[in-house]
Amino acid sequence: MGKTGLQLRSLIKASGELEISLVDVPTPEPGADEVVVRIEATPINPSDLGLLTGTADLTTIKASGTNHHPIVTAKVPETTMPAMAGRLDQSLPIGFEGAGIVIMTGSSDTVKALMGRTVAIFGGAMYAQYRCLKVADCLPLPDGTTPAEGASCFVNPLTALGMTEAMRTEGHTALVHTAAASNLGQMLNKICLKDDISLVNIVRNAEQASILRNIGARHVIDSTSATFMDELSAALVETGATIAFDAIGGGKLASQILSAMEAAINNSGKYPYSRYGSTVHKQVYIYGTLDPRPTEITRSFGTAWGLGGWLLMPFLAKIGQAGSQRLRQRVVDELKTTFASYYTKVVSLAEALDPANIAVYVKRATGEKFLINPNKGK
Amino acid sequence: MGKTGLQLRSLIKASGELEISLVDVPTPEPGADEVVVRIEATPINPSDLGLLTGTADLTTIKASGTNHHPIVTAKVPETTMPAMAGRLDQSLPIGFEGAGIVIMTGSSDTVKALMGRTVAIFGGAMYAQYRCLKVADCLPLPDGTTPAEGASCFVNPLTALGMTEAMRTEGHTALVHTAAASNLGQMLNKICLKDDISLVNIVRNAEQASILRNIGARHVIDSTSATFMDELSAALVETGATIAFDAIGGGKLASQILSAMEAAINNSGKYPYSRYGSTVHKQVYIYGTLDPRPTEITRSFGTAWGLGGWLLMPFLAKIGQAGSQRLRQRVVDELKTTFASYYTKVVSLAEALDPANIAVYVKRATGEKFLINPNKGK
Repeated sequence: MGKTGLQLRSLIKASGELEISLVDVPTPEPGADEVVVRIEATPINPSDLGLLTGTADLTTIKASGTNHHPIVTAKVPETTMPAMAGRLDQSLPIGFEGAGIVIMTGSSDTVKALMGRTVAIFGGAMYAQYRCLKVADCLPLPDGTTPAEGASCFVNPLTALGMTEAMRTEGHTALVHTAAASNLGQMLNKICLKDDISLVNIVRNAEQASILRNIGARHVIDSTSATFMDELSAALVETGATIAFDAIGGGKLASQILSAMEAAINNSGKYPYSRYGSTVHKQVYIYGTLDPRPTEITRSFGTAWGLGGWLLMPFLAKIGQAGSQRLRQRVVDELKTTFASYYTKVVSLAEALDPANIAVYVKRATGEKFLINPNKGK
Repeated sequence: MGKTGLQLRSLIKASGELEISLVDVPTPEPGADEVVVRIEATPINPSDLGLLTGTADLTTIKASGTNHHPIVTAKVPETTMPAMAGRLDQSLPIGFEGAGIVIMTGSSDTVKALMGRTVAIFGGAMYAQYRCLKVADCLPLPDGTTPAEGASCFVNPLTALGMTEAMRTEGHTALVHTAAASNLGQMLNKICLKDDISLVNIVRNAEQASILRNIGARHVIDSTSATFMDELSAALVETGATIAFDAIGGGKLASQILSAMEAAINNSGKYPYSRYGSTVHKQVYIYGTLDPRPTEITRSFGTAWGLGGWLLMPFLAKIGQAGSQRLRQRVVDELKTTFASYYTKVVSLAEALDPANIAVYVKRATGEKFLINPNKGK
C-alpha cells in the first residue's frame, strides 16, 4: 500500500444539499504500467467548477468541520435538482488535470524510467495529494519545468489547438472566438499569431479588448459596441472566417455571428449571389455556457449553416491517437511560451474550501484563475 | 424561332411594390442537345411561393390588366425590404419543376428520340407555356404517364428520398419529421414503410394525425398534446431515431426534439451514463420556415448535437451524379405509388393570378396544393 492522502469530494444529496469535503484515501499500489504522482499543482477550470458546485445556490454557503477536514455546504434549489439526477448521493472526486512528481512506479521499464520525473497528468480526481495513473495518462515534462508550469497542459492548450485543428479539417481558413480574453482565448491568439491564422476575437468590454490588443491580437471586437455588427462583418470580410467557437452559448450572439458571416460572404465579391443564401457553409460551435439562457437563432443566412456542441474529448477521439499525440507534443514543446498559464492565487486543498476563496473562483472572471497545490506547506 | 408563349413574372420594385404579371416571351430555338417542352403541369410548391410573393403583404393585393394579361400588385412592408435587396427591380420567372410534351428538339440523336415524349423537367421558369431545356434537365416518363402525374417528380420526391439518404450516410437508423402530414411528409411515410425505416411523425393537430394513421404511419405525435414530450421520448426509445428534419423552423420544437432524443438515449439502457451528456450525436436539420420566429434552443442535451439548414440541391451535389441518378430513377419507377402527388385545383396561368386563388394557395395548408396548366384550354 502507498501513503494515505487527502482527496477533495463533492456530494449532492437527494435531500437537496451540496457538501464539499476532504477525505483521507489510501493511495493504490501501482500496477506494472502505473505510477503514483505527488500532485503539486492542479488548476480550477470552468469544467471542474461545474462538477464541484453543481447547481447549488452559493449565497447559502456554510463552512463547518475542522482545519484539516473542512466541510462546505450549500442548498441546491429544488427547480434545478432534476439536472443533478445523474450524480445524486455519489461522493465525486474532482479535478481534470494537474502536474506533480512521480514518487513510486510499477515494474515495467517504461514506468521505472519516470521515477522522480515531473509529469503533467490527466483523467480526473486530481484535487488530491496522490494519484495512481497509467503511464498513458502522463506527459513527462522537460527538465527545468515546475509542476505549476505544467499544471494546465491539457484542457486549455488542447482545446485551443483543437479549435484550429477543427477549423482546418472542416475546410475553413480563419476563425472567430467569443469570450476571447479568457486564458484559453489568449492561448488561441498566441497559436494563431505563430501559425499565421486569422482570428476574430469577440469580447464583452473595453478592458478585455485591451488585454488582447496588448498580446498582439489583430481583430478585436466589443459586442457591446453600437456598431458591433458592422465591425464584425468588416473583420469577417477581411479574414474570411466561416467557423466560430462560442463560449457564451445563450442569447443572440451565435445567430449574430452566422448573420455577419453571411453578410461578409455576400460582400466579399468572391461568390455568385443567390437569393436562397450563399452556398458557403457557416459553422458555430458552442463549447461553453457563460450565458445559460436559450440560444436564439434568427434564420436569415440561407441554408448552408450549422450550430452544434463541441467538446475536447470527442474531438480528440475523432482525430485519433496519432493526432492527439501530435497536439500533446506541441504543448510540451511550447509550454513556457504559447501555452504558459497564469494564476491569481495558489491555495491548499483546505483553502480551496474557504468560502472567501470560493466566492472569487466561482465567478470565472477573465484573468482570475486559481491553482490548487494539494501538498502546499508539506 | 419557336413559338411565342406566356410566362409568369414576379417583380419587386425598389419603390416597395410587388407586381406579378404574364408576359409574352419568344421560345428559343433548341440547341443541339436541347428540347422545347410544352408545359402542361407545374405545381405551386412552398419554395416557389417564397419567390412568387416575396415578403409582400397580401392583404393589400390589387388586380388589374386584362383577361389575357392580368396583373396583380401588393405592397411590400418597408421593414422587410432589406430581405428583398437581392431581387429588386428584376423581373423573375418562377416555377422549379413541371412536366409536358417535347414539341421540338435539337439535332443530336439523343434529343431527337425524345420528340413527342412526356417528360418531367426542372430548372426554374416553369410557369410558362413553353420551355427550352438541356436534355440533362429532362426525365423521360414511362408511356401512359400524364404530365399531371409527372409534374412533381423533383422537389418533394427527391427531398423525401434525400432525407432517408442523409439519415443513412450520417450514421442514423431512424428519423423524425415535423409538419409530417404534408404532401412531402406523406411521401416520406410511404418510403419508410416500403424501406422498413422507423419514422416518427410530429403533427400539429388531430386531423393531420388521422391523415397519417390512414396511410399506415406507425408513430404519429401531436405537438399540441399535453403529454407531447413523454410521447415523443417514448417513440424515440422505440425507434432509436437521432436525426430529424424540421419544416417548422421557429420556436422551441427543434430544441424539444433534441431534448427528447437525449432523454431517449439515456433511457434506452444502451449507452453508459455520462454527466456531460450522452456521446450519441443528435441532429436536427431545418428545411422549412412554417414558423418564421427565431429558433429557441435550450441547451440541455450535452454537447453531442447539431442544428443546421438543409436544402435539396446542395445535398444532391454532395451525393454526386450517380447518387442523384439513382434517386431520380426510383422516382420514375414508383411515380404512381410512393411518389403520387395530389392537387386540390388545376389553374391556368391567368387563374394563378386571380386574388381568390392566391388567397388559398399562399396558406400552404396541409392538403391544399395547386397545379398550374399553362396550356389549359388551349
